[in-house]
This record gives sequence, C-alpha cells and structure tokens, in this order.
Amino acid sequence: MKLDKLVGERFKERPSDCTVDSHALMVRGGYMKYVANGIFSSYMPLKRITRKIEQILREEMDAIDGQEVQFPVVMPAQLWQESGRYESIGKELVRFKDRSEGPLVLGMTHEEAAVQLVREYAQSYNKYPFMIYQIQTKFRDEARPKSGLMRVREFTMKDAYSFHTSQQDLEEYYDKCHKAYERIFARVGIPEVVSVASDSGMMGGNISHEFMLLTDIGEDSIAICTDCDYRANVEAAENIVEYVRDEESQELKMVHTPDQKTIEEVCAFLNSDEKKSCKAVVYQRNIDDKYIVLFLRGDLEVNETKLTNFLGFEIHPALITEECGLTAGFIGPYNLKGDYIVLFDQSLKGMNNVVCGANTTDYHYTGLDMERDLGEVEYYDFAKIQEGGICPKCGKKTIKVSRGIEVGNIFQLGTKYTKAMNMTYVDSESNIQNPIMGCYGIGVGRLAAAICEVHHDDYGPIWPKAIAPYEVHLCAVRADNPEIKEFADKLYEELRAKGVEVIYDDRNVSAGIMFSDADLLGVPCRVIVSPRNIKQGIVEIVARDKSFSVSAPMENALEEIIKKL
Amino acid sequence: MKLDKLVGERFKERPSDCTVDSHALMVRGGYMKYVANGIFSSYMPLKRITRKIEQILREEMDAIDGQEVQFPVVMPAQLWQESGRYESIGKELVRFKDRSEGPLVLGMTHEEAAVQLVREYAQSYNKYPFMIYQIQTKFRDEARPKSGLMRVREFTMKDAYSFHTSQQDLEEYYDKCHKAYERIFARVGIPEVVSVASDSGMMGGNISHEFMLLTDIGEDSIAICTDCDYRANVEAAENIVEYVRDEESQELKMVHTPDQKTIEEVCAFLNSDEKKSCKAVVYQRNIDDKYIVLFLRGDLEVNETKLTNFLGFEIHPALITEECGLTAGFIGPYNLKGDYIVLFDQSLKGMNNVVCGANTTDYHYTGLDMERDLGEVEYYDFAKIQEGGICPKCGKKTIKVSRGIEVGNIFQLGTKYTKAMNMTYVDSESNIQNPIMGCYGIGVGRLAAAICEVHHDDYGPIWPKAIAPYEVHLCAVRADNPEIKEFADKLYEELRAKGVEVIYDDRNVSAGIMFSDADLLGVPCRVIVSPRNIKQGIVEIVARDKSFSVSAPMENALEEIIKKL
Repeated sequence: MKLDKLVGERFKERPSDCTVDSHALMVRGGYMKYVANGIFSSYMPLKRITRKIEQILREEMDAIDGQEVQFPVVMPAQLWQESGRYESIGKELVRFKDRSEGPLVLGMTHEEAAVQLVREYAQSYNKYPFMIYQIQTKFRDEARPKSGLMRVREFTMKDAYSFHTSQQDLEEYYDKCHKAYERIFARVGIPEVVSVASDSGMMGGNISHEFMLLTDIGEDSIAICTDCDYRANVEAAENIVEYVRDEESQELKMVHTPDQKTIEEVCAFLNSDEKKSCKAVVYQRNIDDKYIVLFLRGDLEVNETKLTNFLGFEIHPALITEECGLTAGFIGPYNLKGDYIVLFDQSLKGMNNVVCGANTTDYHYTGLDMERDLGEVEYYDFAKIQEGGICPKCGKKTIKVSRGIEVGNIFQLGTKYTKAMNMTYVDSESNIQNPIMGCYGIGVGRLAAAICEVHHDDYGPIWPKAIAPYEVHLCAVRADNPEIKEFADKLYEELRAKGVEVIYDDRNVSAGIMFSDADLLGVPCRVIVSPRNIKQGIVEIVARDKSFSVSAPMENALEEIIKKL
Repeated sequence: MKLDKLVGERFKERPSDCTVDSHALMVRGGYMKYVANGIFSSYMPLKRITRKIEQILREEMDAIDGQEVQFPVVMPAQLWQESGRYESIGKELVRFKDRSEGPLVLGMTHEEAAVQLVREYAQSYNKYPFMIYQIQTKFRDEARPKSGLMRVREFTMKDAYSFHTSQQDLEEYYDKCHKAYERIFARVGIPEVVSVASDSGMMGGNISHEFMLLTDIGEDSIAICTDCDYRANVEAAENIVEYVRDEESQELKMVHTPDQKTIEEVCAFLNSDEKKSCKAVVYQRNIDDKYIVLFLRGDLEVNETKLTNFLGFEIHPALITEECGLTAGFIGPYNLKGDYIVLFDQSLKGMNNVVCGANTTDYHYTGLDMERDLGEVEYYDFAKIQEGGICPKCGKKTIKVSRGIEVGNIFQLGTKYTKAMNMTYVDSESNIQNPIMGCYGIGVGRLAAAICEVHHDDYGPIWPKAIAPYEVHLCAVRADNPEIKEFADKLYEELRAKGVEVIYDDRNVSAGIMFSDADLLGVPCRVIVSPRNIKQGIVEIVARDKSFSVSAPMENALEEIIKKL
C-alpha cells in the first residue's frame, strides 16, 4: 500500500475533545472518525488492527473447542422477555418497533440468542459440553460514551457462551478460558493484564472475573493486595472493618452545629475523628422515588454496586425535598422518622461515642452508642474498600487501589438463562435438568485502544508486531531522486513478493513529515532509503519502539529487514 | 472437528415453511436458525462458508485497490437528512430514538457514511481516485422477507464506494469492478452469473448493473435477447412497441358490456383483439391518496418501477371507492372526469379502432381513435417488456424473459450524494467540484444461498470447493471396531497436520445416517473407512458432486486424498 493513497487524515494538533492519549493518537493518525456520540467509523489502519485482533481471538477460541457462529444484531423483544431482561435492563438496551409494530431490540450481549440457538439441539447430556462464540457488532446506549474507543455505544465484541451439565465441568472450562484469555492478551502485546474478581452485574451468576490492564486512565478501580494474590474490582471487593469501641460510652447529647453540613465540617467543628462519626447517604428507588437512607462510618464511601445488588432494584442519588421529611446535612439514625428504607453499613456495628445528625437543622448528636441507642439493627457490607484497607484474603492492611481498563470478562452464569428460557436436557439417569452456562467477552475496539494506551509515545502509537497495521513502513526520502525512487520501488516490490505487509511512503514531502506520519502509523519496523544512506550504500532499519536501529548494505537490505521482523 | 460435537440439528423432513430448496437444505443441514421474520442465526457450517466468501470478496476488492474500512450499523438521522434519504426512503429504513431522544437509523446501505468518512480527507484532486469498502451487518425492514437467506431483514453485505474526478475515471473503475465481480462469482463457484442493465432505484444515478444467477426460483425477471448481447432487468428494460394503425377509423360508439369488467372479458365479449384495446390501471399516491390513472394497451402489463421513477413519488394500487368518481372495470380515457393524474403508455400512441371503458357501469366504447378523440396527449414508456418482445438494442423480436437471483449490483451514482452532502474538492485548475461516486454491493448470505440453489441435489448442498465448510468429510463406519477407529483417527490427525479442513464422523451410527448427514453438509470430498474397505485394504474417496469415486490403498490414503483436493 502506498501511503500517498491511504484514505484518512493525519495531523499534529491534539484534538481538544480527546481526554485520553489513545483517542487523541487514533484521531490524529487517521484511524477513526467520529460519526455520532459513541459511534465511530474506522479507516483502514484501524480495520487492519482489529482484523488481526479478531483472528487471534478466533484462533484462541477455536483452540478451546469454540464453534464460531453468528447471532443477529437485531432481536425480537420476545427473546429478552423470556429471560426477563427486557424489563430489568435500563435504557442501555435499545428498544424499537419494526414496520408492523413488532418490538425489537439491538443486541448488547447475546445470552438469550445463544440459548435460542441451541435449546432444541442440546436436549441430551451427551451433547455437552460445548462452546459457541461470535465476533459481531453490538450496540449499548451508554449514558456517557467517552475516551474514544474505550467507552462507546457501538462496538465489535467477541462473545462466547459455554454449556455444561455440572458446575465442576463449567469450572474446568472456565479455567481453560481464563488461560486462553491470558494467551490472547500476551499475543496482542499486553501480557501484563491481570484478572480480578468482579461483580456480575446484570449478567447474573456468581463467580466472574475481569481482565484489567492497569493504567491511570482506566475507568475501573482495582483493589490489589501487595502481600497475597488477592485482586478484585473495587465494585466487588469486600470491605473489612476493624471493630473499634471505646471502653466507656458517653451519653447521647444534642449539640448545636450551625451550618456544619458535611461530615468533614461537623467533625472539624466538634474536633472529632471522622472514624467516630456516622454519615447518611440518601438514594431513591428509580421506579417510585422511595427514599433509601444508608448510614456508614464518616470516612468511608458507598459502593453503589454492592448496595444495588443488595436491594435488587435500580436507584439514583436522592433529591431531598422540603416535603420528604429528611433534613439535608443533619440526617442521623437516632429518632429518624418517616417511611424510608434504612440501611446500616457494618463499619458502624458495635460503635459508641459516635457523632451523627440529629434530624434537626443545625443540630448533631454526640455520644451515640449504636447498640444502646438503636437496638437491634442489621449491618451489611455497603462500603468501598480503600487504599490501605484490610485484604479480605490475608487480613493485612495491604490493599492498594489502582486504576485499570477492563479488556475482557468471564462469567459463571449458572442456570439463570437456561431456567428462565426453559432450556433443558435429559441427563444420564433420565432426569430433566437445566444446563449450566458460562460466558466470555472481549471488546475488540476497546482492546485496540487499551493497547495503544500502554504502547505509545508523544508521537504516536507503538503497535505490537502481532496487531500492527503493517509490518514494515518504507520511507523513500527524496523520492523525486530517480536513484532513490528506483531502489525503494524495487525494495517495496521485493518485500511484497515475500508476503511482507508494507506501507510505502514515496511522497514528495520532507523527511520530517514522512517520519511524523510514520510515527502516527506506529508500524514496528521502519526502513529509510535516503540520499545520505544511498551515498553510503546502506538503508536504515529502525524499530518504532527504539529497540534497534541498524544500517544494512543496500544489497542485503531485503534479508536484513526480514531478519528483523 | 468431530461431527459428534458439531452444534446444530440435522434432519430429514423438509420444513413446511421453506419454499425454496436452499432454505430447506440449510435448515435441514444445521446451517441456520430462525430467530424472527427475516432474521436468522448461523451455526458454524454456514459461518465457515460466509467467512470464506468474505475472504474472497476482500481479496478481490483489495486487488482493485479497495481499502477496507468500517462504517457504523447505527447512524444519526442527521446524516441521512443531509442526503435527503431520511425523508425519501420508506419504512425499509428503521428509524428510532436513543435515550436522549436523538434520532438514529439502522444502516441499510452506507453512501452517507462513506461521504462522511472522506469528505474532509479528499479535498484535493490529487487524492483521487480511491475506493473504500466494508463487510458489515445491515438491516432493511423488508415488508415481505422470504426464501430463507434470499430476502431477509438483517444481512451481511460487502459494500464498496469509489470516488472520482471525472465520469471517464468512474467508468474505467466501474469496468474494473465489473471484472472483479466476474472473478468473484467464478471463484465462489457460479461463473454462469450474468450482468444485466438495471434500474438504479433509491440509489440515484444513471447506469447500473445487477449480477444475476439465472434460476427459476429467482425473484427478478430478466429480459435477454437471444440474438444480441442485450440483457436487462425487466424493471429497467425499455418496452418497444410497433406502431399499428388501421387504415380506416371507425366511429366512436358506446356499447353495452354487462358485467364484462376485465379487458380479457370485454375483448372476448366483443370479439376484439386485446392488442386493439386500452385498459386502465389505477394507483394512489402514498402521501395523499390522490388517484393516478394509467392507460395502456390491453395485452401489456405495467412496469411499476418505470412508473414510480417517472412520477418521482411512492404509489400503491388504488382502492376504488364509490366517492372517487371512477367506475371500476369501466374506466376509459374518453370523457373521463375528475381530478386524477392521467398517464398514457406509448403502446397506445396513434392507435385507432380501440376498445376502452366508457366510465359508465356496464358500458364500453368501441372505435376510439387516440388522436381524433383525445387530442394531444403525451405518451411515455410505462409497460413491461414481454417474452417475444422487441429487443431495444437489435430491434428483433428476440426477447426471452428468465428468472434470476440478484447476487450483486454496481451503480454509477454521479454526484447525487456528494452534492447533497456538500463534499467538494479543488481540481487542478483551482475550481471547486463535487466528486463523482460509484457503489458496489454483494450480499454474503444471499450469495451463499444462491450458490446452494444451483449446486444441490435432493440430499443436500454440493458446495464448491472454495467455499465449502470443510474440505474433507471423513466417515468411520463402525467406529466401535477398534481397527476402524484407530485407522480413521490416525488419518484424521494426519490430514489435520497437513492443514486440511476435516470434519470427522466417528459416531456409533449406521452408515445410512452417516452418509445422509454428510450429504447435508455438502463437503466436496468424502473419505470412507469401513469394515468392508478395511478388509480390502482400501479407503474410498468420493466426490460429493459424483465427479469421481476411487479406492486408494490404505497406506497411500493420505496422499491420494490430498491429490483429490
């Protein structure tokens, strides 16, 4: 391919709407183009990258006995009604009607379609286990698409679904797939990806893992134990608290705290430790706006994922109105009156001498003793694990919180979908059973962006060899010189004849423009034919990642290049 | 791959809802599964076929300098408003809203997206020509999906878009693409595909061709001259009529024709030739139900495509009510009163002694002389070309009408989209111009089904080698016999080691079931290991298309099989 004819614009200036480097470089390098919020077109360089990633995914799925199939992008609503997700999923699921008013959805994941495809086929235990997968376009109406290909609405995903007759068989396959994922991330150039325990969210099921590429721009927070092998998404991590109780309980006293509304303000005003305070965080249930008041220790934050999982319904941060009976800034568990769902985080269990709101404007209590003053209440884990927190596995205070990009996930789904959708098989003892499912996803575009995020410099991406759009970037500096042009043309043809993927720049532009365009395309091996080099009888062969830079005699150029690939 | 584990059901009975053989065989053979009207999932055998077709498409598009890109499935309505098609296309275009009420569409074709992708890039003449293409899922809300993969709502398509600075350059590229299409159809095993002139329909532009696979189950009618090389879709074919006029004009006379409503009945009743009659066909404009009355010679049929193109708006067959003023069955051009759009087909031009309706129940006229009685009216070509009709190219009465499946199309679009979407470039003389576009489509699933339609027998598809799901179907008859099993296992592993794509049937089933499953999978080369064969020291190597059937000594089996591939 001649660079001259490569469709797409390349330019120097960082677009102002790009918050992450991968997005900026992929726009600047002519990889992608904005079409609508969270919707992009790909130019050829990105298409070549994603196709190579897809091929690796395909090979690794085939290697664990996956069968490539294809589910539709557009599905009948009825299929999602069977599983219950037509009702349970929010606006991310696009619902629309066809010309005859038939309700349809756009596929954002394909558990329902997978069950529909195999439920007549797999009615006997001897058909199991099996795994089917596809690489297909999906659409999820994200509320806040951002960061280029990191969080989009339309995306291409490899999604796989396995079916089993026992939990043990699922677990064995799950491990196999976990290993396949490790191979995939190693092959695409990011072996540093780690798997972490995760929350299963809307997928259902219990055990699940996310594969995380650790980087500061990641959207996810991951709790990692620096002492043992515990790793979990903060959303899923248990928050362990130390039971702290003063020997002597003070008496409960209402104190005047004018205009001290946040727990930080109150504690500073009363010269009290935040760890000895109780704060309220208020939500409302989406369907009817009923209030949920959650009390937790003042220094902790709410883990909304754990809270939502506990409640089993969708919530949003509360709008505290005059009529609702809550006194914003002064809400406390003692003497709280009204029809609210009231929850307590386990961080408060057994505490005494606590500062909390008095449910009266400008007043707080001091000396609250949870047991003495509130009686028997249930405590659950609703708080976020924190940097320096206690590792749920080894029990030491060794938790570090890092940012990461989720580049893959695997779920043990159990029988959630097969039960709901009435998929059964007859086991070896003639009993009717629901098969057990696993599902396994990798987003192709996000993976490309994540690789770019950890493999780039100021000038452009540095693509790993296995997924680079081309293998060799051939620059003919001063191609208007017939000697240069002739030699470079010949080398181009020879490389192509050897099956090497070459992008060839023979434009009549300065070496500076040529090299900055080459930087933006990020091809691993650059070959420079130039007047100075030709005078010396050499070509330069330079690695994009600076791992080598050699001169080769012109007559051996072809072999030397191939040696470097 | 072991057949034992191949996901998908195979069965004998032809499903009652399958009207064409390809659909029946692809359902019976475990290739596809119904999800919703015009929406299917693919099992692995079909996925393997379509991936091979896609790879051939890709190679041939790359060979004519195409650049593979990707456009979104979901596009903002605004893009389609720019081209004017958001309004002009009917319900086939799915329109819906996202969570913030932003109007979106599902891509059924991507001219708008192609222009959007390149309009900033290609602002100078020296960027031209170029071609971009994608292979992507599309959705078209067809009113009547049918015939399995032949006419669906969701489909995968290779769509290509070329951009040029002159009509001549477009035409040269168009020819190149025409030749690439011929290579594609030859490679996938249907070299007999012919290209025919076609109507450009909603795509705009002037010259266009469809690639037709001639078969009786085809949905399209194609006019083919048996004497010259004229070939056109009947929709697009000009209908040439001979000017026939009797020497003497009779007088216009109203005659009683009780209950004779169709032109056949009237002509039989009056003992008159249909070629000397004038019939009315009535439509209504979609937007306001205004009536359109078209008169044409009694023996001809209306070509609705030509009519719609002439009118420039959508129409539907009329509902003739009591109030509309038309007398159903007795409508004629003489003394027709009312606010209708009245059109005349050129077949009526200059005719005399014509029978036509008298706009009065149970009465017709005889002796109508078009010029004498109707004065100056305009005549246009609205009629369908017929079997035995006049060839528009050589003028002989040599037209044959055949049925065909459209398996590809190419369009010269002109500047329709670039003008509407304000895509411009600066030419070599600094003038601002709109580029000229071509577009080129092939539906992948329909192509697979079309190939099956012309390559099958009663027992299953006979896939051409280049697109077959596997190369070899290895049958181990009586695999419960250790000798059989051991030899077949070894052969399977040896073939795989040589890179041969093998499907291996070592199930404990009868030879009959084994062979009928093999027939349904349609793999070109079948290898049979059986007790009888083993006793003779041979394996059988049989072609699915019956072109060969040989015995090879067991020790040479591998080489002999590879020789046959």
